[in-house]
Formats: sequence, C-alpha cells, structure tokens
Amino acid sequence: MRDRPQSDTRERIITAADRLFREIGYQKTTVADIARTLGMSPANVYRFFSSKKAINEAVTARCTAEIRMRLEAVAASGRPAAERMRALLLTAHQSVLELGVTDAKMQEMIAVAMAESWGVIRAHIEEVDAIITRVLRDGVASGEFVPSDPEVTGPCIRAAMMRFCHPGLLTQCHDIPRPTVEQQADFILSALGHHARS
Amino acid sequence: MRDRPQSDTRERIITAADRLFREIGYQKTTVADIARTLGMSPANVYRFFSSKKAINEAVTARCTAEIRMRLEAVAASGRPAAERMRALLLTAHQSVLELGVTDAKMQEMIAVAMAESWGVIRAHIEEVDAIITRVLRDGVASGEFVPSDPEVTGPCIRAAMMRFCHPGLLTQCHDIPRPTVEQQADFILSALGHHARS
Repeated sequence: MRDRPQSDTRERIITAADRLFREIGYQKTTVADIARTLGMSPANVYRFFSSKKAINEAVTARCTAEIRMRLEAVAASGRPAAERMRALLLTAHQSVLELGVTDAKMQEMIAVAMAESWGVIRAHIEEVDAIITRVLRDGVASGEFVPSDPEVTGPCIRAAMMRFCHPGLLTQCHDIPRPTVEQQADFILSALGHHARS
Repeated sequence: MRDRPQSDTRERIITAADRLFREIGYQKTTVADIARTLGMSPANVYRFFSSKKAINEAVTARCTAEIRMRLEAVAASGRPAAERMRALLLTAHQSVLELGVTDAKMQEMIAVAMAESWGVIRAHIEEVDAIITRVLRDGVASGEFVPSDPEVTGPCIRAAMMRFCHPGLLTQCHDIPRPTVEQQADFILSALGHHARS
C-alpha cells in the first residue's frame, strides 16, 4: 500500500547489495549480480546508482544510520546521564559487532568504504560525537559529571572507544584481552568524574 | 674495533631493508635488491634471515624497540608521575609519527607486519602497557592519581590513545580535527583523578 515505489526499489537494491557483499565479497560482486538477484536489468540499477561504489556508499550509510538510531534511543531514555553514557558506549560496541564486521568479506567491504566513501564515515563520526556530547551536557547539568568543554570531551570519549568501535581494530585486537569494553567504559566515566564505587 | 661482525651484518641488512621498503615499497623490494645495496649475495642475506617476511619482522622489531626506548626514558625521568604520564602519551604519538607511518609505502610495510608478524606488535603493546602501568603505580603511590587496579587502568590508557598511536588510524583520522593529542592526554589524566586546572 506504500506509494513510494522508487524509494522502495532503491532500498531493495541496497539490501541485495549488502547481502551479496557479505556472501561473495565486495570485489567479486558486480552490478549485474545485484540486478540479477532482484530480477531486474543492470540498466535499472544504474537508474538509481551511478556505480558499485555509490551502492557501497548507500550500504555504508544505511549501516551507520542503523547504529545511530540505536545510540539515539539510548541517549533519549529517561535514565541518569552516567547510566546513559555507559549504555551508549556499550551499545556502540555491540552495534558494530552485530553488523558482523569481523567477517573477512565484511572487512573487504568496509576497507573499500573507508577508502572510497570516507565522507559517509566522517559524517557518522560527527553525528556520534553530537549524541555523546548531548548526554555529556545532561550529566554536567545534573551534577553527575564534572564540568568540562563538551565540544572537546565528547570527541575524546569517542576516540577513547575506537578500539571497540572501529571495525578494523575490533578484528586486529581480538586477541588482546585487556581492556574489556566494560573496563574502558568505566575508565571513560572516571574521566568525567564519575568514579565506579569499589 | 667491534668484534661482533655477524650481528653487524644482521643490523646492516635490517637498515638496508628498512630503507628499501620505505623507498620502493615492501612488495616491490626483493631479497636480491637488499643484498645488492649491501654488495653481498642473496645467499648471504639468507644466512641471517630465512625470508623477506623475517626481515620485515626484524625491521618492525627494531622500530618498536626504538619507540619503547624513548618511552622508557620518559618513564624513568625524575619528574612527578602526572607530568611523566602526559609526556609518555605525547611521546608515544610523536615517536610513531616520526617513523613516517603516514607515508603510503610505510603503510604497505606496516600492513604486512600487522598481518604476518602480529606477534611482534602484540609483544610491543604488552611492553608499552608495562611502562604505562609503572608510571601509574608511581602516581598512585605519590597521591597524584586516584587508586585503581593498574593492570586494568594501564591497558585502558593505551587503548584510549590508539587514534594517536596506531599507524593506520593516524592516516585514516588525519582530517578529524578533534580531539587533539593534547586534549586526549588531558582527558586520560582526568580519568586518573588528575583534572587539569581551568
């Protein structure tokens, strides 16, 4: 009953591409493969995306938007800021993990996205910083966090979490047992003046 | 006048390989190229290293040892622990940068080392953790840092610095202006209970 067939087709192409990139790998997947699984012509796919790179960019944009949606939900919950911040950091890690980023074929797709569609990743990082910064302000206002410049501290928090949120690092560091993501989240909360009771 | 010609030859091979990997690139450099620049036969190089991979491992081990030497010097200086910790973090960043890691040919060599000689990198990370942890204990003993388990907090500090010390991230994140390395170091000191006076 939806009256947006054009955007539906676009979404179906992204979904099919996402699946093929994961199953066959980015390099081996062609626009013709994507069209075939949808029972359409390559020319029709090209009506929506100018290149395989553009499709990968859309897949990346969808994945990152999905992560932000989960982060937004945590940030908007009614819990105290310190609890929300901790949940935000753990959710960021969990969301990236659940994308299956440690799979070799996903790594290939992500490496291409990082190299060719950095703008999408960069915009995602800025929006994540904005979510973190919002919770940070709430915590300073409520007295849970010590005052600091949120425009500086927000990005510091994001940078301190990279080992748990950057797909390449998640794979590379999997055999380095410490810190755990919970330990890193507590460490970050300490930096905000919210020391865990021991 | 040194009486260790064998180890001298080994060191000369590492130096020549390091230079060629940086100039020509890892893939394009052959063991024969390395031998030629030293005026020796490939067979002689193979007396010291079983493969190009083994040479790259030795180059990586030398680079990482050099970084640790600089970190050890900072850690052993007589300054207060908080000052030493801050200097340690900035030195870690500066040392990696000075290796020229953001150069494309160095990136190639490092990517191979990370993939094929992860053991060397992992051992380096453990030794860096030990240096950080030592300064941490000093700071807790002197009352500069709030008490915490150094075996947990040390790795957290290292993980929080990855964006500034991991060669791949230094390159990938170069256009993300925040945080600066100084901001990240201050953030980490906050986590240790040493809040910068504002």
